[in-house]
Amino acid sequence: MTDEADDIAATAREAADAARAETLPRFRTRDLGADNKLEGGFDPVTEADRAAERAIRAVLARRRPDDAIVGEEYGPTPGRSGLTWVLDPVDGTRAFISGIPSWGTLIGVTGADGMPIHGLVDQPWTGERFEGGRGPARLTSPRGETPLGVRGTTALADATLMTTFPELGGPGEAEAFRRVSARARLTRYGLDCYAYALLAAGHVDLVIESGLQAYDIVAPMAVILAAGGIVTAWDGGPAQGGGRVIAAATPELHRAAMELLA
Amino acid sequence: MTDEADDIAATAREAADAARAETLPRFRTRDLGADNKLEGGFDPVTEADRAAERAIRAVLARRRPDDAIVGEEYGPTPGRSGLTWVLDPVDGTRAFISGIPSWGTLIGVTGADGMPIHGLVDQPWTGERFEGGRGPARLTSPRGETPLGVRGTTALADATLMTTFPELGGPGEAEAFRRVSARARLTRYGLDCYAYALLAAGHVDLVIESGLQAYDIVAPMAVILAAGGIVTAWDGGPAQGGGRVIAAATPELHRAAMELLA
Repeated sequence: MTDEADDIAATAREAADAARAETLPRFRTRDLGADNKLEGGFDPVTEADRAAERAIRAVLARRRPDDAIVGEEYGPTPGRSGLTWVLDPVDGTRAFISGIPSWGTLIGVTGADGMPIHGLVDQPWTGERFEGGRGPARLTSPRGETPLGVRGTTALADATLMTTFPELGGPGEAEAFRRVSARARLTRYGLDCYAYALLAAGHVDLVIESGLQAYDIVAPMAVILAAGGIVTAWDGGPAQGGGRVIAAATPELHRAAMELLA
Repeated sequence: MTDEADDIAATAREAADAARAETLPRFRTRDLGADNKLEGGFDPVTEADRAAERAIRAVLARRRPDDAIVGEEYGPTPGRSGLTWVLDPVDGTRAFISGIPSWGTLIGVTGADGMPIHGLVDQPWTGERFEGGRGPARLTSPRGETPLGVRGTTALADATLMTTFPELGGPGEAEAFRRVSARARLTRYGLDCYAYALLAAGHVDLVIESGLQAYDIVAPMAVILAAGGIVTAWDGGPAQGGGRVIAAATPELHRAAMELLA
């Protein structure tokens, strides 16, 4: 890696450490003070989300003042380097307030062309940190450090499929998802960003979601690409802007799922 | 606790340790050798399931030779003490083979009247062990030991609801579940026995499932009862035989959910 790539990776790690210090002490405490962001529904945000994003931004302001930032809680901050940090301080706030350790801190970086060049998915409670950029992808955890790599499943009939919500977006999207699910060996639900991490680590084969924002996908996408997988929109277009996203372990699975989603 | 209750609790712990030695080294390994138990579907069982149940049975044969056993993998073994050990060596085999740490080893004990008198839910990878019997319920983990207790949510509009499968049993059951889900603040999916553990620990408020076997519910039920919660069938009848089960943090939530399920 270049010095620049090293600095980006080190900055992401320092920012994730700073976010952990805000999220972990609040996880599984009884009064999380969840506020609702969605009129007529429930889209929770907690002080953990806000404090973690502030902590990440403080690290970036010191180490990478010329880079732009897009964060879920505090919006866009312009830059002049061409690089943009794309942040979701707590992806899976619903899991966070339910005591479920599938939430994570997402820290991604895009280049001038908008493509993800580095990503970090951090699960503070299990201590797992999934990283990927121009070099190899790796998982560091209390169990040690291991390389990440997707597994080689090529047939849908052998594939494990994941999605966060059982009801994806509109009726057409749900129907499309069910067409893939009906052909997969196994479908599992509800894991937020942890599903992408499991794909990069070779435990599951496909993740299909819709309604994503850029901050939901840039970091996981960088990790999965570095682990040898594929991430696109359902129609094969770019995924880094969010929307309808398919992540696959192999080109064969990606093609088979895309055909059923179309 | 009496000496007998102490011995039951200590035996359950020793059996869970023995099961951990079989499950944990196999978790997240690449070739799990999952066999399919279900013609026309996918109901996986692995060597981890079988080896863990054998390990538990070996402990029981030595320490509790007069007690009966019912296990998922090796069926019933008669006894003459009136006590029955009810075992699911790996509850959540689908999660196990997908790298998701929501599976668990369930070790329950019923008395002569069939009521659960002791239960243990063990998640070896996170190191969490949830226990409950005639004394207080507790969680032991690498983070220390803490008492378990349900939280005091009384209104469905404030409740977090969990279920393992998004599509419960038949269409009527799914429709009944959706009536509750539509009124709950938040619904989360896919956590197997870990959902019951989160209820006992006060992080979620309701778990609703169907199609359960006795070995799926006896151990979690004992933990939840000891933590102050309620576990019945959807119609308010006994839950320890499995079938359609509702677990609730408070009588108010239990009643509200039962009315919508009816």
